Amino acid sequence: MKAYREMSREELTALKQDLDKQYEEVKAKSLKLDMSRGKPSASQLDMEMDFMGILKNTSLMSEAGIDCRNYGLLDGIPEARRLLGDMLGISPERVIICGNASLTVMYDAIARSMMFGVLGSTPWCKLDKVKFLCPVPGYDRHFAITEQFGIEMINIPMTPQGPDMDLVEKLVSEDEAVKGIWCVPKYSNPQGITYSDETVRRFAALKPAAEDFRIYWDNAYAIHDVFEDKSDTLLEIFNECEKAGNPDIVYEFCSTSKVMFPGSGISAIAASEANLKEIRQRLSIQTIGFDKLNQLRHVKYFKDIEGMKAHMKKHAAIMRPKFEAVLEVLERELSGLEIGSWIRPNGGYFISFDSMEGCAKEIVGKCLEAGVVLTGAGATYPYKKDPSDSNIRLAPTFPEPKELAVATDLFVLCVKLVSVNKLLESM
Amino acid sequence: MKAYREMSREELTALKQDLDKQYEEVKAKSLKLDMSRGKPSASQLDMEMDFMGILKNTSLMSEAGIDCRNYGLLDGIPEARRLLGDMLGISPERVIICGNASLTVMYDAIARSMMFGVLGSTPWCKLDKVKFLCPVPGYDRHFAITEQFGIEMINIPMTPQGPDMDLVEKLVSEDEAVKGIWCVPKYSNPQGITYSDETVRRFAALKPAAEDFRIYWDNAYAIHDVFEDKSDTLLEIFNECEKAGNPDIVYEFCSTSKVMFPGSGISAIAASEANLKEIRQRLSIQTIGFDKLNQLRHVKYFKDIEGMKAHMKKHAAIMRPKFEAVLEVLERELSGLEIGSWIRPNGGYFISFDSMEGCAKEIVGKCLEAGVVLTGAGATYPYKKDPSDSNIRLAPTFPEPKELAVATDLFVLCVKLVSVNKLLESM
Repeated sequence: MKAYREMSREELTALKQDLDKQYEEVKAKSLKLDMSRGKPSASQLDMEMDFMGILKNTSLMSEAGIDCRNYGLLDGIPEARRLLGDMLGISPERVIICGNASLTVMYDAIARSMMFGVLGSTPWCKLDKVKFLCPVPGYDRHFAITEQFGIEMINIPMTPQGPDMDLVEKLVSEDEAVKGIWCVPKYSNPQGITYSDETVRRFAALKPAAEDFRIYWDNAYAIHDVFEDKSDTLLEIFNECEKAGNPDIVYEFCSTSKVMFPGSGISAIAASEANLKEIRQRLSIQTIGFDKLNQLRHVKYFKDIEGMKAHMKKHAAIMRPKFEAVLEVLERELSGLEIGSWIRPNGGYFISFDSMEGCAKEIVGKCLEAGVVLTGAGATYPYKKDPSDSNIRLAPTFPEPKELAVATDLFVLCVKLVSVNKLLESM
Repeated sequence: MKAYREMSREELTALKQDLDKQYEEVKAKSLKLDMSRGKPSASQLDMEMDFMGILKNTSLMSEAGIDCRNYGLLDGIPEARRLLGDMLGISPERVIICGNASLTVMYDAIARSMMFGVLGSTPWCKLDKVKFLCPVPGYDRHFAITEQFGIEMINIPMTPQGPDMDLVEKLVSEDEAVKGIWCVPKYSNPQGITYSDETVRRFAALKPAAEDFRIYWDNAYAIHDVFEDKSDTLLEIFNECEKAGNPDIVYEFCSTSKVMFPGSGISAIAASEANLKEIRQRLSIQTIGFDKLNQLRHVKYFKDIEGMKAHMKKHAAIMRPKFEAVLEVLERELSGLEIGSWIRPNGGYFISFDSMEGCAKEIVGKCLEAGVVLTGAGATYPYKKDPSDSNIRLAPTFPEPKELAVATDLFVLCVKLVSVNKLLESM
């Protein structure tokens, strides 16, 4: 394969003619495919149908001795705290089980800081300026939260080991307005990068200028391996924080949205005792308690973390051919062309693609024109502004493998076409 | 029966000796009864056990054509919006189905106003002073929300027709800092009063000084009749608001917490199109969507509002003897003594009792000492401060009728005892 940038104008022009023709042919097929969101597929959901009757003809008492059908138990039932604690590798005492979405738990954590401050600090809404660090590319819904609250977002480049920690340390220690950082530490969205042990240790040892600085550790893909033979391991952060004398610096979040049913899962916030005490004090005014029957459903279904992990292997078996279908096309069609790069993740829900600078929007637009919906270009950056207009998030989980191959064929065609145009323009 | 205040010192002293003796006898029984919270009893929950398997072997597609197991549909599934809309007597288009507790929906409504303002107004957190009107006695958890947000609460006396509307109209129209009023318009907590048609019309026609004033219409007991032969009717407020040219002035709330399972129900916020548009804009950042499977469970179980109302009759049949047990003792033991008054409600979850001034705390304390837990005296007032220390909320739903009779026997004994002491002291 010859790199595009080594081609002559004539070669590129001939290539363009050929690609244009191919594109028109695909367009004529009127595809209707969606690789835009990290949604489980119907076949993943189908395998969980036993869940629906799991509470029929069984005791609805929690091991705490209370009736799960009635009011009470703000922290959640002990058996659910244990299950999600085990998912994160931490003690159940650290865990409060919440509602159906960790997104809400994160939103509310920031809302509380806005309205009430953190362990006695000034409420953020009383400050002139609040800033968050945002490793990029990252999760669009994180950025949407901080944007809604008017929090200034600062891009932090990702490296293969996690966020650029030199920059994180500098900004966190120098600027009192920096109150938090969004992290997806395992199988990051969208790159699938797992933070290295050193990165986790450097997070745990941060010396923030702001006493109310917190790491928002969204461990969304804690047990979401995709490939059987290789899986990433994330160092447990609370343990490191304690060692570093920084027990209160992190809020951790997780949910079963991508373990069981999206939208009908259970979620959790985990934190130090001091943080939990404050959270409970606020939370007890916002709710009498979360849905304990749904907590019980999850516990009865999985029994324990081993049951949950066994279940995740079934998800992986369904997802693996999908990831492979996309990666196979990328590798076959784009290797050596030097018009894009991508990371082969071991888990998570996404494949991240970087085009030549200034091409992402156009590639996504071309795909859409031919019937394939991708996540909007820029979505992986704060304010939807990718400064180099190059990152595209591919979400291979929802369509079937055959559809994915078709969609990815179109995608690589668009990558080629837009790249050729770009190179011709700049000649 | 002779009124206590007409008794001589000698009569009262003799009475006191007798009551003291009775009290010691009851104390020796080591009772352990709880009339403190509005919780359904186990027998109410038992009759709903078919609910547990209702989604087994059935379609999980919403009539909106989407899979309830997966992400999406912020407003909730149409069939659930219709069900809760019917519960409130309003169009489903006005309704967004939310999570497991209307308390959270109310908390979040106020949190949004604090952080973002209301339809373009200044966020309340930027104002020096925000005030709420609180009809008293009222619901302690409402007051706890406004207290947590540092909102100044102003007592509004309740009348048999609802809040004192002369005072409400005056304060709302004169003071721009007054941003809201808490209302439980049907079978109010704790008195069981239903607002009269005129009261509802006067609410709908309010002319607030503050453009961001809202009525927080917590229709918690919309279909919660207790007595078969008599039930209250509440005028539907949105309709009245439209007629009065005030479409945006109300947020309405409800849930199925006391229809199905407390803590595992579905809740709703209802509002005008302009309000809903703003709510959706904020909510879509806080969540991708609420638990649609639980919405579907409720719809499949009840089918429609007629099914739900039939179900409420079963609740009423269980609750009726409990209300009767308490009211029978109150009437038998206290009528004519002029040491307390109470309202006989047609529905809801509570019986409200007013002792002589300055006696409530002591009565509750005496009951506790002898093993019967009541809601703390003062709980029905903002800041837990009942200025006349007289209101006590009795919650008769959780214990069984026999226990209730025993608990109420103790309660009236304590009322008598504390009243006699009070009268003797003041002689």
